[in-house]
Amino acid sequence: MALDEIRKEIPIDDIISTDPDDLLAHGYSEWSTTNPEGLPVAVAYPRSTEHVSTIARICHKYRVPLIPYSGGSSLEGNFSAPYGGISVDFAFMDKIIQVNKEDMDVVVQPSIGWQDLNNQLEKMGTGLFFPIDPGPSAKIGGMIGTNCSGTNAVKYGTMKDWVINLTVVLADGTVIKTRRRPRKSSAGYNLNGLFVGSEGTLGLVTEATLKLAVVPEEVSVAVVSFPTIRAAAAAAAEVMRTGIPVAAMEIMDEVQMKVVNMGGATAPRVWKEAPTLFFKFAGTKTGVKENIEQVQKIVKEHQGSDFEFAKDEREKKMLWSARKESLWSMLALRKEGEEVFSTDVAVPFSRLADIIEVSKKEMDELGLFASILGHIGDGNFHESIIYNRHDKVQREKVETCVKNMVKRALEMEGTCTGEHSIGWGKKESLVWEVGQETLGVMRAIKAALDPHWILNPGKIFDREA
Amino acid sequence: MALDEIRKEIPIDDIISTDPDDLLAHGYSEWSTTNPEGLPVAVAYPRSTEHVSTIARICHKYRVPLIPYSGGSSLEGNFSAPYGGISVDFAFMDKIIQVNKEDMDVVVQPSIGWQDLNNQLEKMGTGLFFPIDPGPSAKIGGMIGTNCSGTNAVKYGTMKDWVINLTVVLADGTVIKTRRRPRKSSAGYNLNGLFVGSEGTLGLVTEATLKLAVVPEEVSVAVVSFPTIRAAAAAAAEVMRTGIPVAAMEIMDEVQMKVVNMGGATAPRVWKEAPTLFFKFAGTKTGVKENIEQVQKIVKEHQGSDFEFAKDEREKKMLWSARKESLWSMLALRKEGEEVFSTDVAVPFSRLADIIEVSKKEMDELGLFASILGHIGDGNFHESIIYNRHDKVQREKVETCVKNMVKRALEMEGTCTGEHSIGWGKKESLVWEVGQETLGVMRAIKAALDPHWILNPGKIFDREA
Repeated sequence: MALDEIRKEIPIDDIISTDPDDLLAHGYSEWSTTNPEGLPVAVAYPRSTEHVSTIARICHKYRVPLIPYSGGSSLEGNFSAPYGGISVDFAFMDKIIQVNKEDMDVVVQPSIGWQDLNNQLEKMGTGLFFPIDPGPSAKIGGMIGTNCSGTNAVKYGTMKDWVINLTVVLADGTVIKTRRRPRKSSAGYNLNGLFVGSEGTLGLVTEATLKLAVVPEEVSVAVVSFPTIRAAAAAAAEVMRTGIPVAAMEIMDEVQMKVVNMGGATAPRVWKEAPTLFFKFAGTKTGVKENIEQVQKIVKEHQGSDFEFAKDEREKKMLWSARKESLWSMLALRKEGEEVFSTDVAVPFSRLADIIEVSKKEMDELGLFASILGHIGDGNFHESIIYNRHDKVQREKVETCVKNMVKRALEMEGTCTGEHSIGWGKKESLVWEVGQETLGVMRAIKAALDPHWILNPGKIFDREA
Repeated sequence: MALDEIRKEIPIDDIISTDPDDLLAHGYSEWSTTNPEGLPVAVAYPRSTEHVSTIARICHKYRVPLIPYSGGSSLEGNFSAPYGGISVDFAFMDKIIQVNKEDMDVVVQPSIGWQDLNNQLEKMGTGLFFPIDPGPSAKIGGMIGTNCSGTNAVKYGTMKDWVINLTVVLADGTVIKTRRRPRKSSAGYNLNGLFVGSEGTLGLVTEATLKLAVVPEEVSVAVVSFPTIRAAAAAAAEVMRTGIPVAAMEIMDEVQMKVVNMGGATAPRVWKEAPTLFFKFAGTKTGVKENIEQVQKIVKEHQGSDFEFAKDEREKKMLWSARKESLWSMLALRKEGEEVFSTDVAVPFSRLADIIEVSKKEMDELGLFASILGHIGDGNFHESIIYNRHDKVQREKVETCVKNMVKRALEMEGTCTGEHSIGWGKKESLVWEVGQETLGVMRAIKAALDPHWILNPGKIFDREA
């Protein structure tokens, strides 16, 4: 009924798809740590905010769930459809609407990828870029939904720090704009901050104005090995506390370095299989040179060895490629039926080495193959665990390890998710993390804005405590 | 009745004051652009989160308004009591609770001033500081309420960017904590982002964990004059678009420079009475030197003259003092009965010169004495207008000018308030700015969290549209 009405009000041939492959692609993800039962009953392909508003108005009338979809690369079942409903795929809303070079901002639609956005900004010769860098296939809509980040977060912050305004379709089809276009404002509630990270449970974002950063004059990369994770973490902590403005600082453990070697993506280069820090530096030539010298001095004091920094563009690419290829290398190791489970806790800096050590040990004891990769300047790390989700014993082992890791992170005053968000998969962890009373505030906000609970139901928290 | 019950449940002599001077001090401000009729009926002085929770629970039962009070330096009637009720003064909750040096964060109570906080952090030898710098008497509680900023915002962002977690007493006395202590998180709704800037209308903040920044190795200052505001703005825009990481970049117009000379606070130094940019640089010695050279080159291309940079600590203080003394110099010029009205619009960078020029012209034509001072890197500026609020003609002139300026800022896609917030004084402007539908979202959130509308009623927006 809702579908007929949408087709009638939006007379475009392919506004609605009910093709089974399409439904599967919009309700199941092999990337995801979790996939609930159920698929959407249809996929809608709106071309404009007005279309989305029409769809929402009709779904609101018939109480049909609406689930936003953009890049499809999220990891916690964020776009799954446990209660059916319509997946709203923004595929046709993937444009840059306006570049305000002088104001250093850009207006975009939700389905533009961050890499595509940056390529276009480069081609236009703006000298500007969008610095938030999650997985390469992520798109702006989902990046807003999950408040994502990536390797640049240590310098540039997370998604919420780059949103100037949002155009949002509310549960009943009402269209609002959170703000006009000032870089800074104290006018009323910070709705940007609320919608970013709300995973489409409060409204569907159809347009966003994003701040842009200046492309640095010079970027360089350095790589250094350590005898232990603890030594690497100590060096990283000192870099932070010295205030050296690194553009990125990533940690990979000896397993992850081995995986990169095994993957062969960076051949003929063979990496030392030891805990390793990857640094990115950005700024003026002089500034970058100085930063490299400062970091070199610090890592030496923490038993860092084989310090290498890129002397030219080719070396820069080569050195960073190990970091960049790490996930792909891991995926390449999967055997038939296996998948990679990616964890995402974050803790205060000072506890990062502790939690990595204990989590590695537990994983080893259970005989699981797992590698570690972390945004160490943010206290955030991912463990990538290879497992077969259809093997009950393996799955239970992984689930136990992950739960323990989350509980450990919370004991250390951390969070169950640094950047992947809650989705369907981490609802229980969120209860442990903030407790029922804080969740009660979130629930009250949800109920106020989406009283029929049609927007991405089943995500972040359930309707009843 | 509520007062008796509070006194009974919290048996401390001075938990409640009804002293008339105390009521006046908590309901009227000579700084404020606006002061509604009415005063609080009492001032409460809680010593702990539990006290605040008890007070809220009792006030909730009797439907008594609760208005948080910390520094009392806000400008838009934010702590006024148009509907009576109890002013909750956090004066006794002014401590640092915990410094986590390794994690670069600090846990504080709401009534600690940001300057006091920084003095204590310095004395402890942490090498860390809290970078948000609004008016010198501002305290953390109010800074959270208004999402304030200051001269450091161009480098460090605004208050919302520095909050890790908040302990909040809700309308019914429930105590929640928004998060644990991770620097980064994607776990559930970003309640930090919502409570920051909500002016105590959603809850009373009783504790906050704040990120800290590393004290830079070197800080320097430069000052340069321009023939016109437009030339100064163009130079500032180029500094931004070149990506030079200035720590602060402030503009003052020729009137403001004259005011500083008249005030004599920086005597014997006499400033050139021309549009002037003040730069602050922070980083390593080499980095600061390089930044100064880059900026010097840019300002020269934009007709900047008399470029001066601090060669030692004394000159640094002297050069920055003109910026620092600007408000005091203006206040010193008031004659009997006069006050200073401070405006606060922000626009996209590229429009700043336009709005300053038009606004200056209008002010001049009306014969008002007004100076301009701006956080130019954020597109935010303040016009300080001397007027007598009891002189109806003058007051109306000021109000007309200010309304026109707000409307102009909104036409340029800006905001009615860059950092002072809405309070009692800018409610009409907020309607113009975001419209009734976006306000409807804010109202729905308010009604969900404070159904009896007892938390700082009359601020940001009214109960009925």
